[in-house]
Amino acid sequence: MKILINGVCGRMGSELLRIVASGYCGAELAAGVDINANGGGFYTSLEDVKEPADCMIDFSHHSCTPAILKYAVEKNLPVVIATTGHTPEEQKVMEAAAQKIPVFHSANMSLGVALLLELAKAAAKTIPDADIEIVETHHNRKEDAPSGTALMIAKALQSIRENARLVFGRYGSAKRQKGEIGVHAIRLGNIVGKHEVILATDTQTITIAHECHTRSVFAEGAVNAAAFLIGKEAGMYDMQSMVDNG
Amino acid sequence: MKILINGVCGRMGSELLRIVASGYCGAELAAGVDINANGGGFYTSLEDVKEPADCMIDFSHHSCTPAILKYAVEKNLPVVIATTGHTPEEQKVMEAAAQKIPVFHSANMSLGVALLLELAKAAAKTIPDADIEIVETHHNRKEDAPSGTALMIAKALQSIRENARLVFGRYGSAKRQKGEIGVHAIRLGNIVGKHEVILATDTQTITIAHECHTRSVFAEGAVNAAAFLIGKEAGMYDMQSMVDNG
Amino acid sequence: MKILINGVCGRMGSELLRIVASGYCGAELAAGVDINANGGGFYTSLEDVKEPADCMIDFSHHSCTPAILKYAVEKNLPVVIATTGHTPEEQKVMEAAAQKIPVFHSANMSLGVALLLELAKAAAKTIPDADIEIVETHHNRKEDAPSGTALMIAKALQSIRENARLVFGRYGSAKRQKGEIGVHAIRLGNIVGKHEVILATDTQTITIAHECHTRSVFAEGAVNAAAFLIGKEAGMYDMQSMVDNG
Amino acid sequence: MKILINGVCGRMGSELLRIVASGYCGAELAAGVDINANGGGFYTSLEDVKEPADCMIDFSHHSCTPAILKYAVEKNLPVVIATTGHTPEEQKVMEAAAQKIPVFHSANMSLGVALLLELAKAAAKTIPDADIEIVETHHNRKEDAPSGTALMIAKALQSIRENARLVFGRYGSAKRQKGEIGVHAIRLGNIVGKHEVILATDTQTITIAHECHTRSVFAEGAVNAAAFLIGKEAGMYDMQSMVDNG
Repeated sequence: MKILINGVCGRMGSELLRIVASGYCGAELAAGVDINANGGGFYTSLEDVKEPADCMIDFSHHSCTPAILKYAVEKNLPVVIATTGHTPEEQKVMEAAAQKIPVFHSANMSLGVALLLELAKAAAKTIPDADIEIVETHHNRKEDAPSGTALMIAKALQSIRENARLVFGRYGSAKRQKGEIGVHAIRLGNIVGKHEVILATDTQTITIAHECHTRSVFAEGAVNAAAFLIGKEAGMYDMQSMVDNG
Repeated sequence: MKILINGVCGRMGSELLRIVASGYCGAELAAGVDINANGGGFYTSLEDVKEPADCMIDFSHHSCTPAILKYAVEKNLPVVIATTGHTPEEQKVMEAAAQKIPVFHSANMSLGVALLLELAKAAAKTIPDADIEIVETHHNRKEDAPSGTALMIAKALQSIRENARLVFGRYGSAKRQKGEIGVHAIRLGNIVGKHEVILATDTQTITIAHECHTRSVFAEGAVNAAAFLIGKEAGMYDMQSMVDNG
Repeated sequence: MKILINGVCGRMGSELLRIVASGYCGAELAAGVDINANGGGFYTSLEDVKEPADCMIDFSHHSCTPAILKYAVEKNLPVVIATTGHTPEEQKVMEAAAQKIPVFHSANMSLGVALLLELAKAAAKTIPDADIEIVETHHNRKEDAPSGTALMIAKALQSIRENARLVFGRYGSAKRQKGEIGVHAIRLGNIVGKHEVILATDTQTITIAHECHTRSVFAEGAVNAAAFLIGKEAGMYDMQSMVDNG
Repeated sequence: MKILINGVCGRMGSELLRIVASGYCGAELAAGVDINANGGGFYTSLEDVKEPADCMIDFSHHSCTPAILKYAVEKNLPVVIATTGHTPEEQKVMEAAAQKIPVFHSANMSLGVALLLELAKAAAKTIPDADIEIVETHHNRKEDAPSGTALMIAKALQSIRENARLVFGRYGSAKRQKGEIGVHAIRLGNIVGKHEVILATDTQTITIAHECHTRSVFAEGAVNAAAFLIGKEAGMYDMQSMVDNG
């Protein structure tokens, strides 16, 4: 699949370029665009692109989303919007474009994290009596505990198990109450990010873990999204849409 | 739910009795039957049972299946057949009974293993470019390598990934070929059984692991099956039917 | 080595008997003694034992320690005292006997836990800049958090790292302070006991984990102690003496 | 401690510079030298260095070792030689210099791997009856299996356990023989390098694992070596000397 990268000179854009160039998921570069492009074979405007593409991935800035979508609708090109922080107006523009073309947008651009969440939910539903604990590990500079991702998973599992109470660390005479979900934040070294959901009954333990080795996981996720989007009907899609429930 | 246990004096039956008595999954004992019962409050024949039950679990012997199903159809009682080794004739009897009542039968009675398999398949489909390896660990007396469960998982994943080649251990100049699935058999101590499916791309790793802590996992699986079966329509069900794909 | 078991009919004694009978570490039974013995080939008094032994293991009661040691000194027999709760007087009797024979006594009878502690200390000294976190996992009925073993390990590592502060769980704006040691208590299922010490720098992670699969680990530890004790000089020994520092 | 870096412009040298600049282990830069230095505050010759230093780390080329050691002996400066591939003559020069100054040289520059090896040896000696298996995981481009490090560990453990047989993967009717050491090579994704030594008896499992997150672990190891070397007597030292056996 031929990928048109918008914002190719930024930090995430150049990471994406590297991954596309490596052929990940069968990707190859159609063209790169960046308003700051200074040669290197890149264009400074989408309007100049002559090469045909199967999908556009945008890593520029949320304020560019309306212009990008206008172009994509004209070209009937699926778009992965990999920026965040959209205003309500920009959000509406996305939804309008999604009437005509497939548009992908997700708060979490890691396909692996989306997968972890879906697998954990399936496990929690399948073994309703299992105790659940969540353990996340991050580098020693992380400011908050637990991580946003761990909290998102905990809340999703809580909504499956009625009366579940979230417990953040344990100390003292802290005997586990039936149904509680423990959340543990380990901090050390330079770990990019690891999340583990553990489910156990008296006889067995299921562990589902996701480890992110590099922050370029988000660029990789954008390529996964492009591969998924090509050939789809017009509509809004996100990472959860990509997890196979078959 | 009230459970009628057939074969309650056998090794698996008495394990099941212990789990039912502990209230696992809301179970309680309706009655216990065993042709070898010698008092202890158990009956020697199903015909003598007076107590109402929501489901029967059978851990006696496959040759008893026809008689058990005859009884269950008369009483309109869902049945979990937890024995194996059925002849084609016995198999036919099961299918006939399943026209009238819900019948559960599965080669693998561990719900956790069924869940592992479904999660691994979902992960493999969701990240088609991920490398897959399977690592299983068992006690040092196990005769075969890999375990039957590891092989079952490997074959299921192989059927998802076209051209996947199974590789059992690596030695020498054994560079990984794209798409191959490595299967590794670790043997040590008294480990009851652990299976791990690892999927990795360049940026992230997903690990799905199941550990069985005691052989009574199968008795627990039978209770899970009973809870699942009650209220279902007539039909044949197995462990995979119980894994939530929602 | 031939083992004389005192207290052979108690819960731990019969577990020990099973392990000795299996030949673990080359052990075989010299004789079994229990004041409650009722046939089964066991003696009711040490005085009646005729079979030669290489070591005695006592799983009876701490109040029996003086009588046992009197017998052992007379026979010049190494003794593993596997009971706990000794009064100061009984403690003195042990020390007096240890002038004449090798006496083993340890608060923690698990060789694996003693090993974990020594390995963790060696790791912490070897990589003084590594962040340390301790994660322990136990069954859902455990009353206290963290486990006594985790606390013992945390305190031992704290004494190696000056200014280390122990942190029990993290929540909110709980950024890791340099040198702190996090201790996390996971509770789920029926896990007998698992302790993990993780050390990480910016570039690498060392994990040292001990998992206990059955409460009979203490009987096994007593056999390890016996094997260690035979041939040693008179003196007091404990589990830490057995960890190889070579 | 002030570090003089020789070969500061090479790939490993610049990685070392980054780690020293971050203050790892209390390091700070005394001066950088590289024959290819082109400004940037670096010298092209050791002779030009005016700043005082506590230790030199060399990441240039083994053929430079004699000249470097001549300089170091004159200045009475401890030296970490972080290059490999020395000729027998160069080796002799190192040994001669080590009569006068502390010289560090190690085939393996990762302190973590040296620690893993020592911990695994201590564990194997402490629990002589434990089964041992080694599991290593590396990226999907690695040519050989098992890794050199796994083989080194396996051989070291084999020399502790007489009659141990190394087994590389298992398939078919491959029942574990008493005392064999299994070695398993997992290949997937972009894993830099992970080694796990597992020891298990019937009742417990000890796992000692080392994971390397980035190839800069070797630069970090050189800083560890420098910190260790300062204040030592003249002599040859290597990574194993740094592991605490106390």
